[in-house]
Amino acid sequence: MVVGTHSLSSRHLLGIRNLSELDIQFLLDKADKAVEVSRRPDKKTSALRGRTQINLFFEASTRTQASFELAGKRLGADVMNMSVASSSVKKGETLIDTAMTLNAMRPDILVIRHGSSGAAELLAQKVECAVVNAGDGQHEHPTQALLDALTIRRHKGSLQNLTVAICGDVLHSRVARSNIFLLGKMGARVRLVGPSTLMPSGIEEFGVEVFNRMEDGLRDADVVMMLRLQRERMAGGFVPSVREYFRFFGLDADKLALAKDDAIVMHPGPMNRGVEIASLMADAPQSVIEEQVEMGVAVRMAVLELLAGPSHNEAGGV
Amino acid sequence: MVVGTHSLSSRHLLGIRNLSELDIQFLLDKADKAVEVSRRPDKKTSALRGRTQINLFFEASTRTQASFELAGKRLGADVMNMSVASSSVKKGETLIDTAMTLNAMRPDILVIRHGSSGAAELLAQKVECAVVNAGDGQHEHPTQALLDALTIRRHKGSLQNLTVAICGDVLHSRVARSNIFLLGKMGARVRLVGPSTLMPSGIEEFGVEVFNRMEDGLRDADVVMMLRLQRERMAGGFVPSVREYFRFFGLDADKLALAKDDAIVMHPGPMNRGVEIASLMADAPQSVIEEQVEMGVAVRMAVLELLAGPSHNEAGGV
Amino acid sequence: MVVGTHSLSSRHLLGIRNLSELDIQFLLDKADKAVEVSRRPDKKTSALRGRTQINLFFEASTRTQASFELAGKRLGADVMNMSVASSSVKKGETLIDTAMTLNAMRPDILVIRHGSSGAAELLAQKVECAVVNAGDGQHEHPTQALLDALTIRRHKGSLQNLTVAICGDVLHSRVARSNIFLLGKMGARVRLVGPSTLMPSGIEEFGVEVFNRMEDGLRDADVVMMLRLQRERMAGGFVPSVREYFRFFGLDADKLALAKDDAIVMHPGPMNRGVEIASLMADAPQSVIEEQVEMGVAVRMAVLELLAGPSHNEAGGV
Repeated sequence: MVVGTHSLSSRHLLGIRNLSELDIQFLLDKADKAVEVSRRPDKKTSALRGRTQINLFFEASTRTQASFELAGKRLGADVMNMSVASSSVKKGETLIDTAMTLNAMRPDILVIRHGSSGAAELLAQKVECAVVNAGDGQHEHPTQALLDALTIRRHKGSLQNLTVAICGDVLHSRVARSNIFLLGKMGARVRLVGPSTLMPSGIEEFGVEVFNRMEDGLRDADVVMMLRLQRERMAGGFVPSVREYFRFFGLDADKLALAKDDAIVMHPGPMNRGVEIASLMADAPQSVIEEQVEMGVAVRMAVLELLAGPSHNEAGGV
Repeated sequence: MVVGTHSLSSRHLLGIRNLSELDIQFLLDKADKAVEVSRRPDKKTSALRGRTQINLFFEASTRTQASFELAGKRLGADVMNMSVASSSVKKGETLIDTAMTLNAMRPDILVIRHGSSGAAELLAQKVECAVVNAGDGQHEHPTQALLDALTIRRHKGSLQNLTVAICGDVLHSRVARSNIFLLGKMGARVRLVGPSTLMPSGIEEFGVEVFNRMEDGLRDADVVMMLRLQRERMAGGFVPSVREYFRFFGLDADKLALAKDDAIVMHPGPMNRGVEIASLMADAPQSVIEEQVEMGVAVRMAVLELLAGPSHNEAGGV
Repeated sequence: MVVGTHSLSSRHLLGIRNLSELDIQFLLDKADKAVEVSRRPDKKTSALRGRTQINLFFEASTRTQASFELAGKRLGADVMNMSVASSSVKKGETLIDTAMTLNAMRPDILVIRHGSSGAAELLAQKVECAVVNAGDGQHEHPTQALLDALTIRRHKGSLQNLTVAICGDVLHSRVARSNIFLLGKMGARVRLVGPSTLMPSGIEEFGVEVFNRMEDGLRDADVVMMLRLQRERMAGGFVPSVREYFRFFGLDADKLALAKDDAIVMHPGPMNRGVEIASLMADAPQSVIEEQVEMGVAVRMAVLELLAGPSHNEAGGV
């Protein structure tokens, strides 16, 4: 790694919003190399040997935690998982007490997932180690956006001038937010497609186009990114019927036919088959959903190594 | 390890049924060497360095998961545990989605335990890595049968012509099934002993003798293998009273006296003391129950190394 | 490590009670060096390479388990966590069956936390490996007392002749018990301060002074050690009101002003802010609470290395 070819201004990764185009390019290039490491029989490097990584998950997330765990282990780090049921936690104060306790154990990296927007940033202000946001409330999920970008770039060569349709429950999606920031920075055109009840008001400010019909939003898209319908976050609000939702907003062959012939289909997982995506679509040749998972490990390896690897320590920051 | 001295026709271990006598012999010989590794102060080898092992347990099993975890770690693999509460899983589809997600993370080995018979085989058809069945429904539990065989062989020299009495709740036992296959292949005589209500119908087809009285089944046995009474699997069916069950089918000194003088007593654990086995019997000199646990780690080391070790990769399969 | 400079008579660490002053001095010196290891970028040593450490926790304790896990990993051990919900365990017999099963897997160290006093000692009589007591009932919690001593020594140079006030719920505190033994052996004067309902009867036998008012007990103290109010252990007994308790026994600036000017404030965590300690006090400059956590990892590294490290094996015991 050549220090100085990028401008990551922080030792944390809290969101996409404050990254530059160069930061993102640098991380994706680094992740491309990490893909090769995970495809070797011996997947182990010593980049983070002797470093301590703590995965502090206040929300359960089997797949994201597993991805960070494998990424850290393949870099040679000592990885410790701490799952804290959010029900047993008094918010705010206890997050900080937990964080300060862990900080005192001298980790090099804290990976945090938390139900409250801003939790990762709050943590980063308190601890001495690198903090990676693995999803905070409805705020950001930066490694998801990076892995989506890596997947797209490997299929399309570049993100520049692509049309990306992000479809479904945008309102509850930190994945959508991080993707909107990233795709905008990288020169892609972002369309948001979904019912108005699941669309954040004023979202057009972020330079996106909003559509309420899949028929309009998917036309000539290069990338169709489906979002999970997060019914569990809709308590008290509008909850669409699954059947109606699928009819109007579920991705099936007819709707996908409106996109470009070589369009790819994405989903951050876990999927609700038959809700936001037809089961056949999930397994179709256009689907790159499993590849996204593979890219997830690679992106996390790149991030972890960048924030806590040896050149970081020796050069006094990257 | 010399490639070519055995005939394991698959890169998976899904059951005993499809193994040859030579396969089994080869695995037991390899496990004998692994026993020595675990008895050293430095128990670590580098056979699986850089390999990724995922333990995917849909049913909780502290002891089996621990055994696989230690086996993998002692071989130098990166081991990740994933416990999935079966209650939170829609069967079938979600098993596959979970498996494909993990597969995309490029593991070398998936160890799976699942409540449905055939789950391990289904998984093996989908993923690119080696699959080890750690128990699927009432189907098979091959590493348990191998560790039982290793324990017996170390005490008796060979399995050939031994009389092995498998006693108790045969109906609900995948341990019994895998043992029946293995012992038959290795030339042992298998007796099944238990109440007719806990005996699978037509089981005689597998070349075993069936007894409904311990007094008959234990006579002159070389090995007395007690099974756990799985009352939790008897919902809606016949549930014997614990007291009656112990009286007729619980192993005590009087019943054991019918077996050979040098008979050994086995149990796959965890034991119901006072139900299928008297507490004194569990701790008696004839009991090899703790040795079975030690052999379990060794057998799993042998299996993991065989399926994912370096000669496997270099030689293009074993 | 030079064998022979201390007199640890056992291969276990079950409590402070049977340690000599020299044992404690030796462990604290060793822990001082471990502090430096955890402060390096590469925190990994190979002292326990190839050794197996099992953390067997019958009571949940995120912080203590994490501390032992990191300590073991930084020493290069293979660490396995086993959390056993005490509700699902029949006491006594099953503890032993679990222990014997784990013992058969050939660990080098078993770290145990259990709700019953004496559980660690019972285990130590049964297994062949080193046992470390991580808290048993209301009996002992030796690594907590050692980390407290290390923290104090680093601030005060020595424990000799210091006045240490241990305040609050002494009755339910194994932390207090272990500290009373340790501080007494090291020549400190121990005061216990708390309501008579939370003070064990006859505790004066251990050479401590008892006070029922903070105003009396804190006067001219060098160290103020607050205990967690363990309301969860008070079922059926006297449960103080939180508001009253804080007024009389919660540490605030006024009460602390009675102690020496350079007094330090300690708490074993997790804190009940606003109950036994004012939130401002917890974060005040006199507070060394986070440093206690850091010393916890170091003390555990010292203990684990001493009990299972290479010189132990080669020299046939320490």
